[in-house]
Amino acid sequence: MVKKGRIVVLRLGHRPARDKRITTHVGLVARCFGADGLVLTVDDRTVIESMQDVCERWGGSFFVDVVSDWRSYMKGWKGVVVHLTMYGLPLDDTIDEIREAAGDVLLVVGAEKVPPDVYRLATYNVSVGSQPHSEVAAVALFLDRYFKGEELKRDFNGRTRVIPSKEGKKAVIG
Amino acid sequence: MVKKGRIVVLRLGHRPARDKRITTHVGLVARCFGADGLVLTVDDRTVIESMQDVCERWGGSFFVDVVSDWRSYMKGWKGVVVHLTMYGLPLDDTIDEIREAAGDVLLVVGAEKVPPDVYRLATYNVSVGSQPHSEVAAVALFLDRYFKGEELKRDFNGRTRVIPSKEGKKAVIG
Repeated sequence: MVKKGRIVVLRLGHRPARDKRITTHVGLVARCFGADGLVLTVDDRTVIESMQDVCERWGGSFFVDVVSDWRSYMKGWKGVVVHLTMYGLPLDDTIDEIREAAGDVLLVVGAEKVPPDVYRLATYNVSVGSQPHSEVAAVALFLDRYFKGEELKRDFNGRTRVIPSKEGKKAVIG
Repeated sequence: MVKKGRIVVLRLGHRPARDKRITTHVGLVARCFGADGLVLTVDDRTVIESMQDVCERWGGSFFVDVVSDWRSYMKGWKGVVVHLTMYGLPLDDTIDEIREAAGDVLLVVGAEKVPPDVYRLATYNVSVGSQPHSEVAAVALFLDRYFKGEELKRDFNGRTRVIPSKEGKKAVIG
């Protein structure tokens, strides 16, 4: 699988009451599609505990952190900062260059609107389609392109694992 | 672009208070990634009006319908019924067969748990990774594989359209 450095997803603008389920989906997708961790700007226990519960049962190594100053976090990042926005350059035109770039990848997704300086702090502003849709899907597609589809074949080595079936639900629970 | 019949997304188990934002994301992703419409089992005006607003401003033809009896809807479908579930057979092992199948495609996604008969009513139970993540990402990945990545290049011919930019937000509003 393509992998040189770390990939971390930074979720901006999380409002606990409104966004807890969307942000949890962003975190679950980040984990499933090959990122190493999720960074929140708000200490939302609902999201953090949901992620910890999934990791504990389903395996893999994935972290969730909280930073209070996301601008410093973006500025201090060693590697490329990719801001996913429908206003950016198309994913398929930029992904090869991003994959070849040195260092770690910070993948930034906002809720609804992001402060204007996010566009300037990013190394790349990248669009997954120039239409309004979902940061959940944008993270999935970015990681899928980055890993060339190989990420879905990873073994998470978890206590619980699915046995893929034509019909019904089969799983081994360790 | 690969396209023979219609693709419709059926969202099961929508609970308005809890799911309105996730279901709206499912609908927006369905539209952006090339489906023709979204079918809800609950008449949730919040979701329907959000979708109508996006279609009106951003173009394309996409419908939102409500059905009261989703079992009859699934049984009466002319074509293949694909249920997206982490317990199903891997997407990459099934997508070519689904693409070649005759007729329209009904893509079924549940919220949390679905009734057991959904697995039997489906022609295919398909997993986008055998890990818990998100129906929003599952719909995006399925459609992306179905259309071989071409769907992101579609022109929606909308009043509002983005001008992809390296930095900042540029759009034409007609």
